[in-house]
Amino acid sequence: MLNLLPCRLRMHAWCLIPKGDVLSFIEKCMVAVGTKPQHACSLAEVLVEGDMRGHYSHGLNRMDMYVKDIETQICEKEGEPVIEKETVATALVDGRNLLGPVVGNFCMDLAIRKAKEVGIGWVVAHGSNHYGIAGYYSMQALKENMIGMSYTNTSPLVVPTRAKECTLGTNPISVAAPAKDGDSFVLDMATSAVALGKVELHHRRGDDIPEGWGCDAQGQVVTDPSKVLNGGGLIPIGGSEDTGGYKGYGLGMMVEVFCGILAGAEYSRHVRTWKVTNKVANLGQCFVAINPENFAPGFNDRMADMLSIHRQLDPAVPGSSVLAPGDPERMNMEKCAEMGGIPYHLSVVDFMNNCARRIGVTQLLPCDKVI
Amino acid sequence: MLNLLPCRLRMHAWCLIPKGDVLSFIEKCMVAVGTKPQHACSLAEVLVEGDMRGHYSHGLNRMDMYVKDIETQICEKEGEPVIEKETVATALVDGRNLLGPVVGNFCMDLAIRKAKEVGIGWVVAHGSNHYGIAGYYSMQALKENMIGMSYTNTSPLVVPTRAKECTLGTNPISVAAPAKDGDSFVLDMATSAVALGKVELHHRRGDDIPEGWGCDAQGQVVTDPSKVLNGGGLIPIGGSEDTGGYKGYGLGMMVEVFCGILAGAEYSRHVRTWKVTNKVANLGQCFVAINPENFAPGFNDRMADMLSIHRQLDPAVPGSSVLAPGDPERMNMEKCAEMGGIPYHLSVVDFMNNCARRIGVTQLLPCDKVI
Repeated sequence: MLNLLPCRLRMHAWCLIPKGDVLSFIEKCMVAVGTKPQHACSLAEVLVEGDMRGHYSHGLNRMDMYVKDIETQICEKEGEPVIEKETVATALVDGRNLLGPVVGNFCMDLAIRKAKEVGIGWVVAHGSNHYGIAGYYSMQALKENMIGMSYTNTSPLVVPTRAKECTLGTNPISVAAPAKDGDSFVLDMATSAVALGKVELHHRRGDDIPEGWGCDAQGQVVTDPSKVLNGGGLIPIGGSEDTGGYKGYGLGMMVEVFCGILAGAEYSRHVRTWKVTNKVANLGQCFVAINPENFAPGFNDRMADMLSIHRQLDPAVPGSSVLAPGDPERMNMEKCAEMGGIPYHLSVVDFMNNCARRIGVTQLLPCDKVI
Repeated sequence: MLNLLPCRLRMHAWCLIPKGDVLSFIEKCMVAVGTKPQHACSLAEVLVEGDMRGHYSHGLNRMDMYVKDIETQICEKEGEPVIEKETVATALVDGRNLLGPVVGNFCMDLAIRKAKEVGIGWVVAHGSNHYGIAGYYSMQALKENMIGMSYTNTSPLVVPTRAKECTLGTNPISVAAPAKDGDSFVLDMATSAVALGKVELHHRRGDDIPEGWGCDAQGQVVTDPSKVLNGGGLIPIGGSEDTGGYKGYGLGMMVEVFCGILAGAEYSRHVRTWKVTNKVANLGQCFVAINPENFAPGFNDRMADMLSIHRQLDPAVPGSSVLAPGDPERMNMEKCAEMGGIPYHLSVVDFMNNCARRIGVTQLLPCDKVI
């Protein structure tokens, strides 16, 4: 019985859980607090995809946040997004304060339908919530052999160049483009140098962070993670002003233009504080599909060639390899497939099982396959 | 008479030239080698805008390159771009190997017309050439109170994360969005940490470069600019792998997806070597206009608020100020307006006057107003 493992061992133990088990566990938990089953299923799909791709910070690890959002009714448990305004190529959607993945799937499907008709679909939503990994939505376009894009604003955690206050979220950009034989380019990046979770991890381990990840409350770039976490903030991709951090700052603001500003949602400093759920999130999101059929013939061949040019480059460090955007995630998914499940840290499984018990979900996540 | 200034003084001297004089000088030089007058005018407008905004590397300083492109017939001196394929919202354009600004203006006008009809216009071109600053085109949309975007691929100068060979250009991204009373957000950035010109400047001065600008021929990040210039390369925004350089690398490749790949132009390592004009450039470019009228009401108010939030932030260093993307360029333009002209280094004026003499342009740039 796993719970009998000595505490010290348990702290470092991982277990392997089949994908289907995680999916149905998340669905059950969400339904237990009143979420419409189809919406629970959409959320489960996105979170499990996050874990499979190795982005644990956007997976099962966050389930309790979504459970709480529905329990406290700060997020709607039923209803459907509504198109408020549209042309053949664009749409403005009211997400009706539904779960982020419900809004995201609705908008991405709409963008793809428009791109089939007129080559492009540009859809923005207000009234949305956290939607998991941005790449989940951009990658939906790959199934139709299209380019997909997805952007969202998030709670302020990033300090602009020259400032000392957080006014922008980690505002991710995701762009996916199909190559050949199921291969693809998948960019899925925050516009901060790193995610907050990486700074937290270094802090927990007692390690310094590299210069260029965060700043203290005075806006000075620091290597002590506790200063970033206590009144400081993340810094934009590019680091300090010297090394081009103003570019990351500009990209973060560009995401706001496409999301909060274009959609009429909250934006910048007006977005609610991270993990504080005292008001509705009203996030802004942007979803785009572009059909290569409407441009030059041979798109897939050129994509395949560009990916191959890069993967075949001689690495600077012998034994390492040059990757294309999306390759690390693809390797993680292959690893999961080989192992027959997703490896989770036992502390995450324990935490989620406790969450499930509290809301009366009897079928808990299995945690007997320690690896 | 300025040419009598001692050589040492002349090396550090700047002169002020009225905008109109620079415009007509560039036009005359281009027409002298056979460029269609309207095309010469388009090029002059873009180059002078680059100088006015302080991006000297994309202004008059590059005129000789365009003169040479027309003289050697590696670039077409007449004709017009042609739409090859289109929908109400998209178009594929053949730039017919005309000057970059001719192709850029054609495509951006088309994108704006489409955005007026259906909310968005996404236009890509193959068969283009260097088009000056990317921001010139995105900013055309501001005149119609629209969001504008412009992307271009360029000759390989950037080394991907983990690699040691240049396979991507500095591939710029420009996004402009209108606020109120003529104010705007203008992002115009290379996806490398810095432009090559900045490394060259440090080299000429004998200064080291900050860590995160470039690497040597072995792909190692270095602070000696001569190593970057001799077989090394620029590195993507974000710097080394540790500080998120793979994000800049991904963004550079994203620009290729929108440009070379979507348009069926040259791309990545296939783009001709920088300053080597032994073959037609066949650059790929992408131009987008988005009409906020088709999304949530109040776009301009929200933009103005977001810009104001940032400009009013308390700066980390007292006496400095937090800027919004486009502010440094706006300040430069105001300075030119106050001074009544554009300040140029005398060596640039001398060089261009010599170029003009060679092609028989008698009305040379004035260089008698030393500042």
